[in-house]
Amino acid sequence: MSEPAGEPVRRRGRPSRTAAESGPGTRQRILDAAREEFAERGYDKASVRGIAKAAGVDSALVHHYFGTKEQVFAAAIEVAFAPALAAPRAVEEGPVDLAGERLTRFIFGVWENPATRAPLLAIVRSAVNNETAAKVFRRLITAQLLSRMGRRLDVPEEEAELRVSLAAAQLVGIAMLRYVVKVEPLASADAESVIARVAPVVQGHLTGA
Amino acid sequence: MSEPAGEPVRRRGRPSRTAAESGPGTRQRILDAAREEFAERGYDKASVRGIAKAAGVDSALVHHYFGTKEQVFAAAIEVAFAPALAAPRAVEEGPVDLAGERLTRFIFGVWENPATRAPLLAIVRSAVNNETAAKVFRRLITAQLLSRMGRRLDVPEEEAELRVSLAAAQLVGIAMLRYVVKVEPLASADAESVIARVAPVVQGHLTGA
Repeated sequence: MSEPAGEPVRRRGRPSRTAAESGPGTRQRILDAAREEFAERGYDKASVRGIAKAAGVDSALVHHYFGTKEQVFAAAIEVAFAPALAAPRAVEEGPVDLAGERLTRFIFGVWENPATRAPLLAIVRSAVNNETAAKVFRRLITAQLLSRMGRRLDVPEEEAELRVSLAAAQLVGIAMLRYVVKVEPLASADAESVIARVAPVVQGHLTGA
Repeated sequence: MSEPAGEPVRRRGRPSRTAAESGPGTRQRILDAAREEFAERGYDKASVRGIAKAAGVDSALVHHYFGTKEQVFAAAIEVAFAPALAAPRAVEEGPVDLAGERLTRFIFGVWENPATRAPLLAIVRSAVNNETAAKVFRRLITAQLLSRMGRRLDVPEEEAELRVSLAAAQLVGIAMLRYVVKVEPLASADAESVIARVAPVVQGHLTGA
């Protein structure tokens, strides 16, 4: 989030605030409620009204802080996606010829941890089913992951982003089969043994075999 | 489908058939309607009543031919997934050391063709969002793809299936980023140039680098 906490990004009407609704925690409470609502119900079924109710505020206040449903969603997935947004660091830090292993370990870490897996799963579900959610997700991946990671590779930008997206495809596919659809034997295979096979492939995509 | 067309797989009650409802085309018409209903609405929102209406028959007749909603779905995705079920042949036929390229070309062929892409997209969407749909999809992948393809690899069964599922993960991830979420530059990249990078990776998973 680029704006300071508590600072409304958009003013639409002027909802009168009760004591319970105001205070510095309100924005965060709405964001938490939004993340849960989207995680549980997916983008299509989630509603600003439901988010407002869960946060104990008026719908108008949700709009006041975040804008449209799409903007609430963008803010919520940015928070839910935050652990994955640290991925570029896994590529940026340390030697490039070990970036494949660092990136693979990082992604497995995020998915193996139930606390970070649940919100990721919700994002994937929404992005697969709804074009608005897909657009938000796409923008996040392109701006935050592909271009930042691609910068470390010593090749032209388009080539770098294609390489990173092929590496990402390998990891996304494993996440889909292992954690989402749960296809055996991949779903139950030991994480380390899968990482040992996948890391060189990711490295190959990034820097060439 | 293993049972002959027009042969009910399950009898539940005895719906009286009108002239319009009977005839050898009825089963196929229900199946077509089911495929469209699941493709348009996804597993959760699709209903046997909606399928029956689209096929111009009574709901009882849908149950009579196919059983529960889950069973209707299984029959419908088996039809929709039929092009992808030809994948094992791409691995089984011809030399094993070219299986990676054949499999990759096959999967790109299925996804590049709008007629086969739409039903696949519907299956992916349902499998990602609904555990029943995921179960049906998982069974299909395991029984029809992994074990059949794995048989061609000269290694123990569990190892063979793990290799095939890692190869499948690479292709599933590319389908997700290129055709479902549409992340650039992968979404617009020339198919042949992507195949040229991906086929050796798939081959590496199948038979070792």
